[in-house]
Amino acid sequence: MLNRQIQLVSRPVKGPAVDNFALRTVELRAPVAGEILLRTLYLSLDPYMRARMYDGGNYAASAALGEPMVGSTVSIVAMSNHPDFRVGDYVESGHGWQEFALSDGAGLRRIDPDLAPVSTALGILGMPGQTGYTALMRHGQPRAGETLVVSAASGAVGSVVGQVAEILGCRVVGIAGGPEKCRFLTDELGFDAAVDHRSPQFSDELAKACPSGIDIYYDNVGGRVFETVLPLVNAQARILVCGTIAVDRNQPGADGTGSMQALLSTVLVKRLSIRGFIYSDDDLMALAPEFRTRVGQWLREGRLRYREQIVHGLENAPEAFLGLFRGDNFGKLVVKVSEP
Amino acid sequence: MLNRQIQLVSRPVKGPAVDNFALRTVELRAPVAGEILLRTLYLSLDPYMRARMYDGGNYAASAALGEPMVGSTVSIVAMSNHPDFRVGDYVESGHGWQEFALSDGAGLRRIDPDLAPVSTALGILGMPGQTGYTALMRHGQPRAGETLVVSAASGAVGSVVGQVAEILGCRVVGIAGGPEKCRFLTDELGFDAAVDHRSPQFSDELAKACPSGIDIYYDNVGGRVFETVLPLVNAQARILVCGTIAVDRNQPGADGTGSMQALLSTVLVKRLSIRGFIYSDDDLMALAPEFRTRVGQWLREGRLRYREQIVHGLENAPEAFLGLFRGDNFGKLVVKVSEP
Repeated sequence: MLNRQIQLVSRPVKGPAVDNFALRTVELRAPVAGEILLRTLYLSLDPYMRARMYDGGNYAASAALGEPMVGSTVSIVAMSNHPDFRVGDYVESGHGWQEFALSDGAGLRRIDPDLAPVSTALGILGMPGQTGYTALMRHGQPRAGETLVVSAASGAVGSVVGQVAEILGCRVVGIAGGPEKCRFLTDELGFDAAVDHRSPQFSDELAKACPSGIDIYYDNVGGRVFETVLPLVNAQARILVCGTIAVDRNQPGADGTGSMQALLSTVLVKRLSIRGFIYSDDDLMALAPEFRTRVGQWLREGRLRYREQIVHGLENAPEAFLGLFRGDNFGKLVVKVSEP
Repeated sequence: MLNRQIQLVSRPVKGPAVDNFALRTVELRAPVAGEILLRTLYLSLDPYMRARMYDGGNYAASAALGEPMVGSTVSIVAMSNHPDFRVGDYVESGHGWQEFALSDGAGLRRIDPDLAPVSTALGILGMPGQTGYTALMRHGQPRAGETLVVSAASGAVGSVVGQVAEILGCRVVGIAGGPEKCRFLTDELGFDAAVDHRSPQFSDELAKACPSGIDIYYDNVGGRVFETVLPLVNAQARILVCGTIAVDRNQPGADGTGSMQALLSTVLVKRLSIRGFIYSDDDLMALAPEFRTRVGQWLREGRLRYREQIVHGLENAPEAFLGLFRGDNFGKLVVKVSEP
């Protein structure tokens, strides 16, 4: 049988480009004993993937040239020669940008389609939501009455962070790009305020939205937005470094004007803690059961909302992926590859 | 009676200078009921004082113009009209750069002269030693076998941090200025290695001294040394920001070449924690009893050593103070103001 893949075919030179990817059709053998055939329903597009396109990767290995681009998927079992899986089972898998994949079952996570739409396994109930919840609780230590600011606030991680902080009694200010996303934050997600980082008065508007300063800054973007937030943080503030979507770390020079020493001096004078982390850190994974219980419950109760942007067709994944870094998406970006 | 003071008479323009200080003689009345007269024995000179010379201060108020420069002292009770103090008692006080002071007893800490030389109340058994011990334990979380690097390693804070980490089973590498200080670290304090930041091969030598990378970096200096250490830290490393002696935070531009984003990117990719703190933070003060017990015991057992540089005469305090920022001192810098 034939399997369509989006392969990584070259490494970025001046940042990721569509011609780093190519649609290739390859042959796929049938599953042998102990194997299943997975058909991809949804493909997750996430900012961390940019760094995997380069040689050297980031906290994990690079994506290999001539192989499907890496990424999480929600898949359905299409054929099974494995005792633990039946045709029609839903699983989260990590088989990347392709229509089909063979698996021996290792690393698969079962998805219950009755709990929530299965695509949420890539968003609010998956890696982005879990990262946001666990890091906020573990490294942010939110207390009622504190002010939390989150950037990329309408995104998959930021929207969870802000809403959870609201539930916990924080004043929540979201930073997003454009008035539509800002309205979504206040009107749909219940944030106390939203500030548009594209506004010429961004700095003043942010200060105005944080009259008591900032106790927790959950940063998903880095760069200029980070530099604008920094002077507003209070003593003993916690800064969580989840991502640098505004900055391609592999492209030197694209990194703002702030100096390392300016950050260190602020760390000292204000006794800040700054914490970098990823989803799979031991101390965050220890909170995964708590995440599933609480966030699952809040979602069922309607206390948490989420927004997805669904792109149709595997072949449109590269262009949609590049749009992530321009802020084109609105909510968690997923590619719908096929129907169940 | 007459009291000689070193007053702060102007604020720094291009950094602190001797003419920001002036020796003035003022009249002092006798202690009234409930007061004691303190005679200064030792005066502490510490890097944090630089920021106090500016308008705005740092985490504490600025020193006032026309008043004695701020700082801790070891004093002896010369006259007492206070029921709790007797003539001859030793106390740590905060009466700044002057020969005498009146006190109602508030904020004084008694010193037992039989435990250790009283000048150690300003160094290894005082604020610098306590800061080093408590921050290392609380924020550094040292584990046996880990590599700890400390800058300004022969100084009042650094020498305690390094020796305590040695006792706890870490591999300890000290950074200091010049071969004499480096020899002291390895030969006298028992560090595993010492690296001279003035060496043209500093970066290579540091890498060579840390074959397994760096798990804890206790930074007292900031600037170029910080930037040299950063690429060597391991994933999950803890960076403790205790001071920026190499950088006058109030003098823009004197802050190295590293970018804020470069630091953030490293924080993310390596999941670092960076923590700024000061001596009097609640979570550090909670460890003060443990500090006094353990460090006091290790000092009596000869497992901890310390070095002081004693400058004689109040009038020499300003020049000695400025030397702190050139690395002129070797060990904890104190001014001997008078004999007991």
